[in-house]
Amino acid sequence: MEAERKNVCIVGGGLVGSLCACFIAKRGYNVDLFEMRQDFRADATVLGRSINLALSHRGLEALERVGLREKVTKSGIPMHARMIHSLDGKTRPIPYGRTGQFIMSVDRMGLNGVLLTEAESQPNITIHFGHKLVSCDPTTGETVFSTDDSTVKRTYDLIVGCDGAFSAVRKSMMRHCRFDYEQRYIEHGYMEIAFPPSESGGHCMATNYLHIWPRNQFMLIALPNLDGSFTGTMFMPFELFDQLKSPEAVVKFYRDTFPDALELLGEKTVVDTILSLKALPLVSIRCQPYHLNDKMLIIGDAAHAMVPFYGQGMNCGFEDCIILDDLMQQFGHDFGKVLPAFTNSRVEDAHAIVDLALYNYIEMRQSVNSVTFLLRKKLDNALNWLLPNHWVPLYTMVTFSRTPYSRAITDRRWQDRVLGRLLCAAAVAASVCAACAAHRVGVTRALRTHWSQMAFRASRMIEGLRKA
Amino acid sequence: MEAERKNVCIVGGGLVGSLCACFIAKRGYNVDLFEMRQDFRADATVLGRSINLALSHRGLEALERVGLREKVTKSGIPMHARMIHSLDGKTRPIPYGRTGQFIMSVDRMGLNGVLLTEAESQPNITIHFGHKLVSCDPTTGETVFSTDDSTVKRTYDLIVGCDGAFSAVRKSMMRHCRFDYEQRYIEHGYMEIAFPPSESGGHCMATNYLHIWPRNQFMLIALPNLDGSFTGTMFMPFELFDQLKSPEAVVKFYRDTFPDALELLGEKTVVDTILSLKALPLVSIRCQPYHLNDKMLIIGDAAHAMVPFYGQGMNCGFEDCIILDDLMQQFGHDFGKVLPAFTNSRVEDAHAIVDLALYNYIEMRQSVNSVTFLLRKKLDNALNWLLPNHWVPLYTMVTFSRTPYSRAITDRRWQDRVLGRLLCAAAVAASVCAACAAHRVGVTRALRTHWSQMAFRASRMIEGLRKA
Repeated sequence: MEAERKNVCIVGGGLVGSLCACFIAKRGYNVDLFEMRQDFRADATVLGRSINLALSHRGLEALERVGLREKVTKSGIPMHARMIHSLDGKTRPIPYGRTGQFIMSVDRMGLNGVLLTEAESQPNITIHFGHKLVSCDPTTGETVFSTDDSTVKRTYDLIVGCDGAFSAVRKSMMRHCRFDYEQRYIEHGYMEIAFPPSESGGHCMATNYLHIWPRNQFMLIALPNLDGSFTGTMFMPFELFDQLKSPEAVVKFYRDTFPDALELLGEKTVVDTILSLKALPLVSIRCQPYHLNDKMLIIGDAAHAMVPFYGQGMNCGFEDCIILDDLMQQFGHDFGKVLPAFTNSRVEDAHAIVDLALYNYIEMRQSVNSVTFLLRKKLDNALNWLLPNHWVPLYTMVTFSRTPYSRAITDRRWQDRVLGRLLCAAAVAASVCAACAAHRVGVTRALRTHWSQMAFRASRMIEGLRKA
Repeated sequence: MEAERKNVCIVGGGLVGSLCACFIAKRGYNVDLFEMRQDFRADATVLGRSINLALSHRGLEALERVGLREKVTKSGIPMHARMIHSLDGKTRPIPYGRTGQFIMSVDRMGLNGVLLTEAESQPNITIHFGHKLVSCDPTTGETVFSTDDSTVKRTYDLIVGCDGAFSAVRKSMMRHCRFDYEQRYIEHGYMEIAFPPSESGGHCMATNYLHIWPRNQFMLIALPNLDGSFTGTMFMPFELFDQLKSPEAVVKFYRDTFPDALELLGEKTVVDTILSLKALPLVSIRCQPYHLNDKMLIIGDAAHAMVPFYGQGMNCGFEDCIILDDLMQQFGHDFGKVLPAFTNSRVEDAHAIVDLALYNYIEMRQSVNSVTFLLRKKLDNALNWLLPNHWVPLYTMVTFSRTPYSRAITDRRWQDRVLGRLLCAAAVAASVCAACAAHRVGVTRALRTHWSQMAFRASRMIEGLRKA
């Protein structure tokens, strides 16, 4: 009863905003969803950011809760492993988790369309396209939106900012409280490039993989689409992008670093793409608090934008919706309790995944090339198989569970310590055994030298593993 | 000649903006100085932030360069030392530097008035009061200002943002480049409180000191004014301010923590002040770059707002003017070289002083109460006396020299290492001597225990010193 008398304003009709509207409407509130742009479903040429998305456990659970999991996953493509492309054209997969665990390539616009259509079908949600937030007041709940030809004023009991990394709701919060805020760019940019379907209309590379060309200081990745194409993305230092200013330079660069991709893309696509597009920046945003009074809340990228390398931006934003929903369940209509509890429970985890996302760029573009990294993965998997409830690899905790992100970092540190000690003990034991054996069997001096060299190499490798 | 054809826009007529106008006008450029507020010199009731300022070496050098040092210092009050007020009403001074070194208490409005009047007297500076920046374009140099009844558009060769911690120029830069930005509040706020002159019209406490009531978790400070009053400022956790909601609570708090100050202020002043004012927040701002293209620059608080505990906010902003002036000397009219060089030379030092200012709050409110802190000061002073060019205490480098702030931090770390090693060596030597002596003279067991206790206490104290 009481819920019907409360009006909630959601600013931003992107992925998180449209999902959040569905969650909040389920609790009986009246929801107005405002989106700055026009309805892109009516006009296929309107394009937002189009990096493919990797949907994983947290995102899937949120979709499940609003009854959309099946609808979304039936048009997604499972990716069971990274497929590493070496310079010589060889490929090798590195699985994401155990057999049956995968992340899912989904189309951003398609997913957004499903969510908007679902929101639209709810009787207590009204979507207002072409409405830009002009101002909002955290004390009275008054909002002002502008359209092409008018100004709309309305007052709400709750305003939820889902308006992305450059959130207008967040900006208005910053004027009204002691708001800690940080935005930090990395020195690398990104640029998308489309791999066409093969001549037969299928995928030109193995379908169920996230393809990576890791070149240490930069990389190319590609995610499969349903139509047989792949969406590729180059991540490179801006300085490097700036050097690719002529067709010759572009082709030479691709021939030297991504020869097999060049084969698939064709010289024309590569040259046209790189010479016509501008590399786009990548930003991390950390802030707090996420709420103001009992009136305003920010979630998703508005609260914690991150670089895309852990595939958690959307998943984390969707999990925000779950957490908000759980708190509304716990505290009922008392937004004065729900909102501070959201800040308290979410800031630390959001900061953790922002950090992890930065770290994972190095893993994707560089560490996957290293033997010690691969050994560590194998060791992690073996220990996970032995102790499934006690030893869960970091990537699995982040991607295939709802373990709080900050807890995932703590657990990984604990695992590192244990592994470090175990490996040291093993190295000592191995050295002692080797020395004893060499002494007892009376081997020649040359052989003993050989043993000690092996022991030295083993200890170096173990040291590497510990750091990986 | 060329300079006369270049037009420079300075946004913000505060301390740094009006000084910067004087510097730039000296190079022959045409300067328009825009200030949002009306001319406060015409209306004494217009008040800005009024924490007294502590002018020191960097600020004085900047004033010297525009010929204003004498004019400003003749209405300032030298403060040779901190005057520490204990709970029992006892006071003891801790000098800032060597004899003859002092920081100077100056009135913010008075200083701002001197600078504006100086700027006004230059033929190539025009001051526009009541002009608020609406927008500025970092590519074309076009600016739009609004007044009460009109809009002013003008295009400039250079736009310098001296518009404070919440700079509008910085906001427009943020929209046009990969701009790293961080604002962070501390959990403490500040509130001013006025100590009246004594009945004879003089100062009610020793004049030439910065008075501090350090109470570990919070503090009160007071700086002398020319009219016999002191401007006091309470720095305390917001939580503590929030507890002072009744006259009884306020008086009890002052009686328990600042009894001698209560005597001087009077119960009425304390109650009226605390119950009528709101504690204000304290923010640190770090960002980069400080420039955009060859058109826009931010300096002063717009680039690096800091908490006030090192007394360097204004001094650092004034030093920005010196550095900009030196770069204009070096590169001439080529703003495309001057501005990047400013960013390159200033970011690291600005971040360093922002950090130092945060650190110094703990020193002012807490460390000054500790014996090891005082011993370290004495040791630093002794070493400085022995090796005046090689051992300069941190506070002296920051306050009485133009040593780059980041270098001051590096030097302090080096001093800490040296001191740590020296003290360890001394402790070992002392213990050995003590043990030998105890053994040789055949003292009783009791006495030997006493010796070893002393050695233990000495080592604890040395450890404390090393950390101080």
